[in-house]
Amino acid sequence: MDFLSHHPPSQNRVDEDDLDYSRDPHWLRSDFLVHTNKPLNAEPCLLTLVHAGDITPIDVFFKRNHGPIPDLSLDHHQIFIGLTEKCSKPDEHDSTVPGIDWQVLSMRDIMTRWPKITITATLQCAGNRRDGLAAVKEVKGVIWKSGAVSNATWSGVRLCDVLKDVAKIPEKDYHRILRDFHVSFEADDQVHEDICYGSSIPMRKAMDPLGDVILAYEMNGEPLTREHGFPIRVIVPGFIGARSVKFLQKIIIQPQESNSFFQIDHHNVDQAWDSAMSLGEMNVQCVICTPTDEEIISTTAPVTVKGYAVSGGGRGIYRVEVSVDGGQTWEPVDKIKQDPDEHSGMYWTWAIWEKTVPKITNSADIVARAYDSSGNMQPEHPIWNYRGVMNNAWSHVHVT
Amino acid sequence: MDFLSHHPPSQNRVDEDDLDYSRDPHWLRSDFLVHTNKPLNAEPCLLTLVHAGDITPIDVFFKRNHGPIPDLSLDHHQIFIGLTEKCSKPDEHDSTVPGIDWQVLSMRDIMTRWPKITITATLQCAGNRRDGLAAVKEVKGVIWKSGAVSNATWSGVRLCDVLKDVAKIPEKDYHRILRDFHVSFEADDQVHEDICYGSSIPMRKAMDPLGDVILAYEMNGEPLTREHGFPIRVIVPGFIGARSVKFLQKIIIQPQESNSFFQIDHHNVDQAWDSAMSLGEMNVQCVICTPTDEEIISTTAPVTVKGYAVSGGGRGIYRVEVSVDGGQTWEPVDKIKQDPDEHSGMYWTWAIWEKTVPKITNSADIVARAYDSSGNMQPEHPIWNYRGVMNNAWSHVHVT
Repeated sequence: MDFLSHHPPSQNRVDEDDLDYSRDPHWLRSDFLVHTNKPLNAEPCLLTLVHAGDITPIDVFFKRNHGPIPDLSLDHHQIFIGLTEKCSKPDEHDSTVPGIDWQVLSMRDIMTRWPKITITATLQCAGNRRDGLAAVKEVKGVIWKSGAVSNATWSGVRLCDVLKDVAKIPEKDYHRILRDFHVSFEADDQVHEDICYGSSIPMRKAMDPLGDVILAYEMNGEPLTREHGFPIRVIVPGFIGARSVKFLQKIIIQPQESNSFFQIDHHNVDQAWDSAMSLGEMNVQCVICTPTDEEIISTTAPVTVKGYAVSGGGRGIYRVEVSVDGGQTWEPVDKIKQDPDEHSGMYWTWAIWEKTVPKITNSADIVARAYDSSGNMQPEHPIWNYRGVMNNAWSHVHVT
Repeated sequence: MDFLSHHPPSQNRVDEDDLDYSRDPHWLRSDFLVHTNKPLNAEPCLLTLVHAGDITPIDVFFKRNHGPIPDLSLDHHQIFIGLTEKCSKPDEHDSTVPGIDWQVLSMRDIMTRWPKITITATLQCAGNRRDGLAAVKEVKGVIWKSGAVSNATWSGVRLCDVLKDVAKIPEKDYHRILRDFHVSFEADDQVHEDICYGSSIPMRKAMDPLGDVILAYEMNGEPLTREHGFPIRVIVPGFIGARSVKFLQKIIIQPQESNSFFQIDHHNVDQAWDSAMSLGEMNVQCVICTPTDEEIISTTAPVTVKGYAVSGGGRGIYRVEVSVDGGQTWEPVDKIKQDPDEHSGMYWTWAIWEKTVPKITNSADIVARAYDSSGNMQPEHPIWNYRGVMNNAWSHVHVT
């Protein structure tokens, strides 16, 4: 390995007009709602999503991108891992910090040095259901409906194993680093807002033996597709999807959050609000997938209402309730399925639930809401914020 | 030490009429609302609570009991620690499981064998604000208003240190026990519902190096008072108060939750709901302490609204907003203070917040709500449940 390969390649911000989308995959199911083509942002229709079952097939999984989908090589891809004590300034990029003793791993290293483990985890875009907030007042971002969420199995290696073996964390500083530091991820891609897509998670999440953060190279038992991060991506279960960085190239343990545009700007919930905390874990969410809103039901038989519920931080879904009178009276659902992770016992997946309600005469406002295992509930109405994130208001469908 | 001292003393359920309250402390501040005297359940008025500041003085701290307050001896008190692989039946008590190799610690052992550490943590009864649910429909339990919450410093030893050194957890089973087991706590007291007060937490919380569960013998720098658990109690930061067992006598690592009445019955949110999950972490909470509801404000000057906000699981308070028009429009508060724990970086304390609003003409419906760092929000209206727990609806005060 020559000297140069011990340093991450330098990257430059690319003008929006210069981004090359010519090698993006073109095929897409017809039952997807495409929000933007360049970059590709598309969600499955809710009926497809819920009928696809507990594990979302790869072609049904929602697609979220910030630039052209890279076309990387399994044989040549390298992952650079480093640790720095230096706080970089807001306009500096973490990986430009000098003096990092970079460790380099090939995909072969990743696939052979650590045990392959599999977790099942739901990814949900923080902007899922942004349409509900956009209806209140203008917001920034892709106006996702309720399909920016999917559930898959992910296979790869534990990030904590890799960092323990490779990152040269001084033992005497371990506790301080665990408590205060962040693990920053940078993608091998091109975006116009920054030199690459980037994001970070607290070190404590990365190293949590029951945190199940993995570097994944397989999805549903197959090599990652390009759209979903080939050749390797992070999976941060229980966190907003933005943290599960695709096309992973750099991992930097550092004293502060990622300086990336996508960490700093993207998830500041309100421009006016100066907060030290960045969003990480998902909040409790519940959505009716079928019947669909404004559906005309021709049967006189009872109607099966079906949907998903999910929460963050490994919190399980404690209860899902359905109302057929707009939220006046509630009943628990009939069926609900959610399994904890085999290794950690944490709830990283959604719960698919079902409730049969008596036949609808005239019309009905069907509503669903969930509680998680920490007693978190959903707000009745959307609570607007500038970035249009974390909308978890009660889910309504009106049927006739 | 004689043989008998290696086994926990057996306890018996006592009829309600036979409970002896004659040695209960009698003194109570006049600004407390006393719900019941036998057992003593009392909360400070909100004005006292919030004016007392960030750290609640011992005499202002809310009082929650299930029986007479024991009068235990520092010199003679013993703590029994054991591990069992046996699942006990619902009507069996964990400590009756035979074959436990009990380890016994004196208070001197506790105070000398492990480093003394101090954490600051807010305790909140799961039934805090039960009055809001009782207004919807009848509920079981003490009808707390919004003062069943207080914040103090607690000094003692880390439960994880004690269990590592004493509990003889087989290394080969460590991961399985960490993932699946619970740590059950039993008090050296008498109650009529069961042989003693008892509760449990997941092993993963007990052993989390950033979980800060301690066995506390001091509160605000002084030995625990009898009311608050003398000579030793558990403090489980981020969890509902019920888990922070006072008058601690037994610690049992076991494959299931505590079979205690107080774990099984007390926190089942709904009789009709068969759930494997017991409540642990608190949800996000926010209460206006001043002005008080129906207060007549005689000044024409701007009004300072002040209150507390807190969440569970170490999640910080991300934002508090106040509305003076019943929830139509919202503004962030002016001042808010919440410090993470020095050791773990987790947010175990409440945030005291303040907002000055323009002078009130005629009347106003002042509302407050909080978001936590996982984007959890509060429901607009109380969501009723049979046990009357976890009410975290928006806090309203009507002033004239």
